[in-house]
Amino acid sequence: MSKVPAGLWKKFIAVQVYGANTDVGKTVFSSLLGKRFKFGQVNSKKWQVQYIKPVSTGPQSDRDDAYVRRHSGCSAVHTLFQFQNPVSPHIAAREIAQHARDIPNDDYVNARLSQKLCENAFALQLESGDYGLGIVETAGGVLSPGPSGTPQADIYRSLRLPVVLVGDHKLGGIAATISAAESLKMRGYDIDAVVCFDDKGKYQNAEYLKTYLKDNMELPVYTIPWIPHLVGTSTQLEQELMMEYYNETSRHSEVEGVAQRIVDRHAARIENMDSMASRTQQKIWHPFTQHKHVEKAEDVLVFDSAHGDFFQVKRTARSDPKSTEDTSPILYPAFDGSASWWTQGLGHGNPRLAVEAAYAAGRYGHIMFAGATHEPALKLAEHVLRGLQNPRLTKVFYTDDGSTATEVGIKMGVRAACKHYDWDGSKEAIGVLGLKGSYHGDTIGAMDASEPCVFNEKVDWYRGRGYWFDYPTFKLKEDRWVVEPPEGMDKEFGPTRFFAEQDDIFDFKARGRSHHYEAYIEKTLNKLVKEQGRKFGVLVMEPVILGAGGMIFVDPLFQQSLARVVRRYNFATSEVAPAPIEGEYAWSGLPVMFDEVFTGLYRLGQFSSAFFLEVHPDISVHAKLLTGGLLPLSITAASDSIFQAFWGDEKSEALLHGHSYTAHPIGSHVANVSLKTMDGYYNGSKWQSFKSDWKVNKEASPPGMKETDGVHTPCKVIPSMRDSDTARIKFWSFWSKEFVFNLSRHERVDHVNALGSVLAVSLKDQSGAGYTSSAAVGLRDALLFEHSKIQIHSRILGNVIYLMASLTSTGSDLHTVEEAFLQRLDAMD
Amino acid sequence: MSKVPAGLWKKFIAVQVYGANTDVGKTVFSSLLGKRFKFGQVNSKKWQVQYIKPVSTGPQSDRDDAYVRRHSGCSAVHTLFQFQNPVSPHIAAREIAQHARDIPNDDYVNARLSQKLCENAFALQLESGDYGLGIVETAGGVLSPGPSGTPQADIYRSLRLPVVLVGDHKLGGIAATISAAESLKMRGYDIDAVVCFDDKGKYQNAEYLKTYLKDNMELPVYTIPWIPHLVGTSTQLEQELMMEYYNETSRHSEVEGVAQRIVDRHAARIENMDSMASRTQQKIWHPFTQHKHVEKAEDVLVFDSAHGDFFQVKRTARSDPKSTEDTSPILYPAFDGSASWWTQGLGHGNPRLAVEAAYAAGRYGHIMFAGATHEPALKLAEHVLRGLQNPRLTKVFYTDDGSTATEVGIKMGVRAACKHYDWDGSKEAIGVLGLKGSYHGDTIGAMDASEPCVFNEKVDWYRGRGYWFDYPTFKLKEDRWVVEPPEGMDKEFGPTRFFAEQDDIFDFKARGRSHHYEAYIEKTLNKLVKEQGRKFGVLVMEPVILGAGGMIFVDPLFQQSLARVVRRYNFATSEVAPAPIEGEYAWSGLPVMFDEVFTGLYRLGQFSSAFFLEVHPDISVHAKLLTGGLLPLSITAASDSIFQAFWGDEKSEALLHGHSYTAHPIGSHVANVSLKTMDGYYNGSKWQSFKSDWKVNKEASPPGMKETDGVHTPCKVIPSMRDSDTARIKFWSFWSKEFVFNLSRHERVDHVNALGSVLAVSLKDQSGAGYTSSAAVGLRDALLFEHSKIQIHSRILGNVIYLMASLTSTGSDLHTVEEAFLQRLDAMD
Repeated sequence: MSKVPAGLWKKFIAVQVYGANTDVGKTVFSSLLGKRFKFGQVNSKKWQVQYIKPVSTGPQSDRDDAYVRRHSGCSAVHTLFQFQNPVSPHIAAREIAQHARDIPNDDYVNARLSQKLCENAFALQLESGDYGLGIVETAGGVLSPGPSGTPQADIYRSLRLPVVLVGDHKLGGIAATISAAESLKMRGYDIDAVVCFDDKGKYQNAEYLKTYLKDNMELPVYTIPWIPHLVGTSTQLEQELMMEYYNETSRHSEVEGVAQRIVDRHAARIENMDSMASRTQQKIWHPFTQHKHVEKAEDVLVFDSAHGDFFQVKRTARSDPKSTEDTSPILYPAFDGSASWWTQGLGHGNPRLAVEAAYAAGRYGHIMFAGATHEPALKLAEHVLRGLQNPRLTKVFYTDDGSTATEVGIKMGVRAACKHYDWDGSKEAIGVLGLKGSYHGDTIGAMDASEPCVFNEKVDWYRGRGYWFDYPTFKLKEDRWVVEPPEGMDKEFGPTRFFAEQDDIFDFKARGRSHHYEAYIEKTLNKLVKEQGRKFGVLVMEPVILGAGGMIFVDPLFQQSLARVVRRYNFATSEVAPAPIEGEYAWSGLPVMFDEVFTGLYRLGQFSSAFFLEVHPDISVHAKLLTGGLLPLSITAASDSIFQAFWGDEKSEALLHGHSYTAHPIGSHVANVSLKTMDGYYNGSKWQSFKSDWKVNKEASPPGMKETDGVHTPCKVIPSMRDSDTARIKFWSFWSKEFVFNLSRHERVDHVNALGSVLAVSLKDQSGAGYTSSAAVGLRDALLFEHSKIQIHSRILGNVIYLMASLTSTGSDLHTVEEAFLQRLDAMD
Repeated sequence: MSKVPAGLWKKFIAVQVYGANTDVGKTVFSSLLGKRFKFGQVNSKKWQVQYIKPVSTGPQSDRDDAYVRRHSGCSAVHTLFQFQNPVSPHIAAREIAQHARDIPNDDYVNARLSQKLCENAFALQLESGDYGLGIVETAGGVLSPGPSGTPQADIYRSLRLPVVLVGDHKLGGIAATISAAESLKMRGYDIDAVVCFDDKGKYQNAEYLKTYLKDNMELPVYTIPWIPHLVGTSTQLEQELMMEYYNETSRHSEVEGVAQRIVDRHAARIENMDSMASRTQQKIWHPFTQHKHVEKAEDVLVFDSAHGDFFQVKRTARSDPKSTEDTSPILYPAFDGSASWWTQGLGHGNPRLAVEAAYAAGRYGHIMFAGATHEPALKLAEHVLRGLQNPRLTKVFYTDDGSTATEVGIKMGVRAACKHYDWDGSKEAIGVLGLKGSYHGDTIGAMDASEPCVFNEKVDWYRGRGYWFDYPTFKLKEDRWVVEPPEGMDKEFGPTRFFAEQDDIFDFKARGRSHHYEAYIEKTLNKLVKEQGRKFGVLVMEPVILGAGGMIFVDPLFQQSLARVVRRYNFATSEVAPAPIEGEYAWSGLPVMFDEVFTGLYRLGQFSSAFFLEVHPDISVHAKLLTGGLLPLSITAASDSIFQAFWGDEKSEALLHGHSYTAHPIGSHVANVSLKTMDGYYNGSKWQSFKSDWKVNKEASPPGMKETDGVHTPCKVIPSMRDSDTARIKFWSFWSKEFVFNLSRHERVDHVNALGSVLAVSLKDQSGAGYTSSAAVGLRDALLFEHSKIQIHSRILGNVIYLMASLTSTGSDLHTVEEAFLQRLDAMD
């Protein structure tokens, strides 16, 4: 979906005429505008004018395009989809369709319009040096359904043509016009102008709208002279009257005003787009960017907008050697292959989320959360606690992003441990336990919880506080799933093991408890605690995948073992309790915290990535997908044993943490809608085909089993899965199994992983891996800049290139992405 | 504005009937609904039904209320404002008004409706044990103008009555109905149901809407049988036909469905509201809260919504001993006296901001910002840099909140200093210089930049890194402006000084450079650096007011002196350069960072609070008001000298900081709209009367003067100000001068400060001040819970109680707040 370039050209202006209602004069205005441009020398230039009616209903004799041709004098008029019955297109289309598939779908309608506009822009350049105007007249009102039933403004959204909205001059038309403008705005449209036919004082809508829309939406309103009253006149007289009307009115100052406004806004948009990269280089300090490496302003990608899985990116000489030609669209669609830094869930420009965001803004704005409550935040806490299916977790603390949520989690965990062991954290160095290559955010506290690495090497206040374990990893290598120890650590972790399926790596019943792993962990802890006298407060892990560390897939059995040992190990006496000693949900060693910022909330295909490990953490951190990919909000969920550590008579004993926008209603409400939608995808048929592709006919552990000792007891073996069990498939990916296995065999590829929406491809690299490696740079650039069936924006981490689907990505789009990826990989030097 | 309780009662349901357009059957539906409830035993209860038409136009003979009385059988029908001319109310009202003041304003119309509903609810209880329904029928479409010209949905918004939207059955009505529903949603309305008259297959709008609204907005649509075709029938026949229609149709299952839905939703809302406090206590871990002190669930304030400056808060036994009675509204309005933790700028539920938030959501969603750019973020960077009028600042770095922005600022400043002095921050302890009582946020890095205090006392990872200076403060005490040294520090800072006006405290020309202050600062630095060998990286200050530290107003001359000395002091050699040595915008000592998270962006009446100090910082941090009070977003602006410290060949030398939602388009776009709006207030007449109240007839230093030595040269003396200079008044407050001076003389008050929107009242306290003090608790609770002309939600910091206006607060509301405040203060034990 949305794989067409946005409708912007240098010398060709396509403008979309929407009506605030049906029968408000769209066609009359389109004719006036066409005539004005064709004969009026707008902006002292000569204009070629085209008129397109994408979807039309009604008999041949009464077609809008014929009317426009007659009255505007423009010969280039086109109707793309014509239905005979003069009713709404969704009814007309349904009536004549034998099958549902006969009804033109939204992508097809939009692509046809895009194609026609591109042809027009191209032809214009070939034929003359003139400028061009394309008038696209929609049918009915802004949200009137197209053939498929989708509101028109949604069908054509990815083109994002500038809009002229024809206001409703009738009684009630003020309300209709403002609401129509609001509906367009919330779909990301830019409205160039509102025009309203002047009813000569009857309802005075134009007069009201002029003031209201200027003051409240910064929109100019142009008043167009009234259309001659035609009822009862003969066709001949009607035509003459209208000819006269068009001759006069097309020269009217207000029509001239609209025409000039369209041209000015187009020029401003182009100029803005042309200057954005260099202005950005001047004013913006980019995240995670060595600005010395951004040599040319041109290296900054300029995004006009985004829709579904696709950005609209400005062409440059790099992306298109012919980018300076006036005939090509200025923008091109690029697949958002990093899911916008792992946030994207329900598609860019999702109109549902836009309305819901506005609802919370309109109901609350922001509300101070200390000592108070509101519905969105409460509902969200309940939803997340329910969704996590972790009986330990009872409370939700809100912050703004993954980093702040991690800081809160660490404050919680460390305090709980200090209370447990009666340590004074303000005097003693209390570290975290974690994994090498972990990443938890960029505030100092979150950084300190990660081992020294390139991210924090030059951060003056960074002081790594903790110990980070080595661990075996799993991956697909030449068609085989393997669990590999780090180089030279066979002794500690055992040799490389092979598994028939990814599922088997997570089959804890079959694999059993790893006494090997547990012994190694205990030995290491003894060294740290008994020998070195170090103190630790919390085990912090990203479950399954270490993201920013390089998309490292950790052997889940090791993470499970670590949680088990750390919960039982007495960090004061170095003894290991044989079993949990303080009740079902307590810990006697240290609390366990999962940083699910990246891996949680369906990023890996399950509500929680803790499901994969069958471990119930005491603290669980969530962000990114929480709002469906719209705006920052984060959650730190905690158990009662953690909460109790802050319970006391003194205010100073409380968790004195809070951000101004804590639990902001917009984020919370959008999160509620997003989670509900995602739950629906998970439980419904939306992901059925992806899941079927990865289905393995053996037992699978359903999530959320009863916990013993902080670790799930494996479920009973299910003899063989029925189709209805597909929803419960745990290990599946948006990326096709065939593609992933193909990659695993590719000569350029060392290994590959795919789980949920994440695909990580580790490229072979002679120069040594790591964040500073540039092995994948060439592939990344080729995917974005080389012409192809699809262009892909991706991010790399050292020699790892990864792709991430959104939760609404379609199989067909992903298939195209897969083809392009393999093609580029083959073409690598 | 909005000082009415939201329209929610226990046994009285008020429902608002809006139309998707005019002439869609609102009155017919209202009659049906009334009849159904009156005669139909909805929910097995007996109902009293009232009908209210707040605003009506048209001749007496044709009034809707008479029609409804006739057909529904309800005798309690009321029209509150009737205009004879059957045109839009804004035209009808204008026609008969002699003066603009004769036109009923929005607050009045809304208050009348509220009053009528409250009367009805009350009467109901007195007269019978029945349940009650109030049907409020609006005029025209959702956004049709009321008498003042304001769209109706905005006029009645603070009541937030549940809505039944009557859909448009006509051609084009699908679009009109969806848009109308969207316009209602983005104003924070809850739509109970959409009803649509069944046109028997002609346009099939109801059928379409049923599916669309369910799938996309979770709204149920009810199809109501068609109204008899009446054209050409006699009045007698018409009436008979309609009687028959009403008799039959009011018993129709779909009408029954709507009625049941209204009752069910009301019950669910009440139930939800009743359970929210205890559910919150179960699931929510509140920010900055010692939960042991929240004894009863009832202590959690339940907010239904907010509008303008007012929350809608659920009544409890504490706020209203009669709260259990069914006749009182369940909610009460409370002035948001902390401006929702200092964020609130353009009013809660601001429809403009809601639409603009939706626009950015619709155009972009979120877009990954690394290596990329988009219009909202670029424009915002340009706006902030322009607004700060600080020639040093050239680059903007985005993060999510004040704490993260501070962390970035510290990373920047410390690195720049380390590079300057060739220190290795990873090995050496590099601190900040700051002021005692400063606060910069709750992530560990931001905490470490503040001195040890109650906020961080029990944070195990907190390690205060720096030195925090004592300083003199200024305040109004018994009618006199004073600058006071801390107790016992007369020697260091000189004795208490008195000033005629607040302006004089900031009159740096008159006060001159303080060699006293500078000598003290140098001496302190010598002790720290030369004697103790300590190292510092950046001076971090909140300009003018230390907020969370207790609303402490610092002598601006001291802050200016500190900046001057620190910029010149050589932290390697302990020498003080006589003048800047490395170019106009460089620093030879340390960079200066201002944390304007609280004080900036018009909170104190100026775009930047640095204007007051006439110092140009090298790093400037902004958040809170940036988005007008809607959602989290923050900015760290930096100078080129800071930026250059991260320029290098290695990626690791870059500022490797970034959050997923960096520069999210929604926040950035809303910020652009907000700043533009605020600039307009500042430059326009919006704050004129507040400014005039504080006008002092002597010279004022206009902001943004050319800088010398990092400090402004004072401007020329302006002999006397003209009225047109009011816009340039620097020291003014939303709080009236009379009120502030009254407070300063109050026996309960030690001192007071007022600047911009901030009022801070330090209460006399025998038990000793400090964050843990509870001196102000009683006053805070009285303001919120005691019955009064206005109830006020406020926050306290130790013995300081503060009030904060939003930037849209009206003089009359604030006057009422001031009266109530004095009244409560007088009544204190």
